[in-house]
Amino acid sequence: MTGEITLERILALQAAYIRCIDHDELEAWPDFFLDDCLYKVTTAENYRLGYQSGIIYADTKNMLIDRVAALRQANVYEKQSYRHILGLPSIVKNGGAEAECETPFLVVRIMHDGQSDIFATGVYLDAVRAAGNDLKFAQRIVVCDSSRVDTLMALPL
Amino acid sequence: MTGEITLERILALQAAYIRCIDHDELEAWPDFFLDDCLYKVTTAENYRLGYQSGIIYADTKNMLIDRVAALRQANVYEKQSYRHILGLPSIVKNGGAEAECETPFLVVRIMHDGQSDIFATGVYLDAVRAAGNDLKFAQRIVVCDSSRVDTLMALPL
Amino acid sequence: MTGEITLERILALQAAYIRCIDHDELEAWPDFFLDDCLYKVTTAENYRLGYQSGIIYADTKNMLIDRVAALRQANVYEKQSYRHILGLPSIVKNGGAEAECETPFLVVRIMHDGQSDIFATGVYLDAVRAAGNDLKFAQRIVVCDSSRVDTLMALPL
Repeated sequence: MTGEITLERILALQAAYIRCIDHDELEAWPDFFLDDCLYKVTTAENYRLGYQSGIIYADTKNMLIDRVAALRQANVYEKQSYRHILGLPSIVKNGGAEAECETPFLVVRIMHDGQSDIFATGVYLDAVRAAGNDLKFAQRIVVCDSSRVDTLMALPL
Repeated sequence: MTGEITLERILALQAAYIRCIDHDELEAWPDFFLDDCLYKVTTAENYRLGYQSGIIYADTKNMLIDRVAALRQANVYEKQSYRHILGLPSIVKNGGAEAECETPFLVVRIMHDGQSDIFATGVYLDAVRAAGNDLKFAQRIVVCDSSRVDTLMALPL
Repeated sequence: MTGEITLERILALQAAYIRCIDHDELEAWPDFFLDDCLYKVTTAENYRLGYQSGIIYADTKNMLIDRVAALRQANVYEKQSYRHILGLPSIVKNGGAEAECETPFLVVRIMHDGQSDIFATGVYLDAVRAAGNDLKFAQRIVVCDSSRVDTLMALPL
């Protein structure tokens, strides 16, 4: 099972990733990434223009661990919750031990009064690699469709 | 095919379930469950607090059959329609003949005037069992993110 | 790989189709269809009533190529973008070399000011056929839930 990257394994990875976040198990979130990785949140416009910076930028797993710590500290009182809904992943390139895939996402925000709205949509541009029995992200670029992305985001995307 | 529970079979089950509801084939809906089952609709808050009751509670397939009959009777004139969109299922535990999985959902309500809004989001907490060539639900707990869930729901979730 | 139509191949087809549209690679969109095909966009109400016409109707791939050309010409300045999110496909009939399947969809519209709303929901009623290593659409009927569908649609569904 180590070698080959199949659609089934990618489906499982994507589902486990958002389950981790929506269950508020943020401490486990960095484990989806390789030690050396690229995690970036950007907008469609900036991505199209080739801007490298991003709203959020991390190139090691340790930076993701730090980010979770910061989120936990900032998170005084959370009035809303979120629900990630993923569309179907598309494998763009599959080299066997590493694959590139794209997965559309939708995040719904549920306010304390029960009202729900669309918080974000976009696409994950991923490079995944087999690491033992698991797949890990070598790269996840989160391209948000809207240019109005909350930079104080209370959760990872 | 009887024995093993695969991601592919779970995908097929989840898709067939919401197809049944969105096609308004409610009379076929109880057949997705075992005779002895647990079907419960609750809120994230009540679920977290460990409340057992739920907005809707049924522990036999017969109770689900009764519920469909009640919905059909109450349903004088339906002004809105609904569309279920499922995210990717995550298999949490797989014992071969029984598996636990979680699937995020989004229900959009389409009003008679054409306006659409988010009716509900949440996650299905399922226990599925192989029953002949089919998979059936031994348990489906529908955890709605919002605490504002319409208790007069005109359709199953 | 030519012959059999599996859920995995259908997932891949569906994901590739919406990726093509959301990447604005509309010129590649007709290639998802057989030369003789049926592509129709209609509403749930008209579909239920058995109306054949549809909002958009094409029965050859060439008509789809023409449609893309028309969209490109009309598309002076695009103020909004769109994101397709697909639910899980359900295989309704599988004859080996041809299969019928249904896939729920949600399209979110992202306005220039960053506001997002639900543009359309509905279901794809597809007949897919193995064509060499690919699957192609022999039929795609796009049934929109809302009767308020923009006939000047700036993108394919």
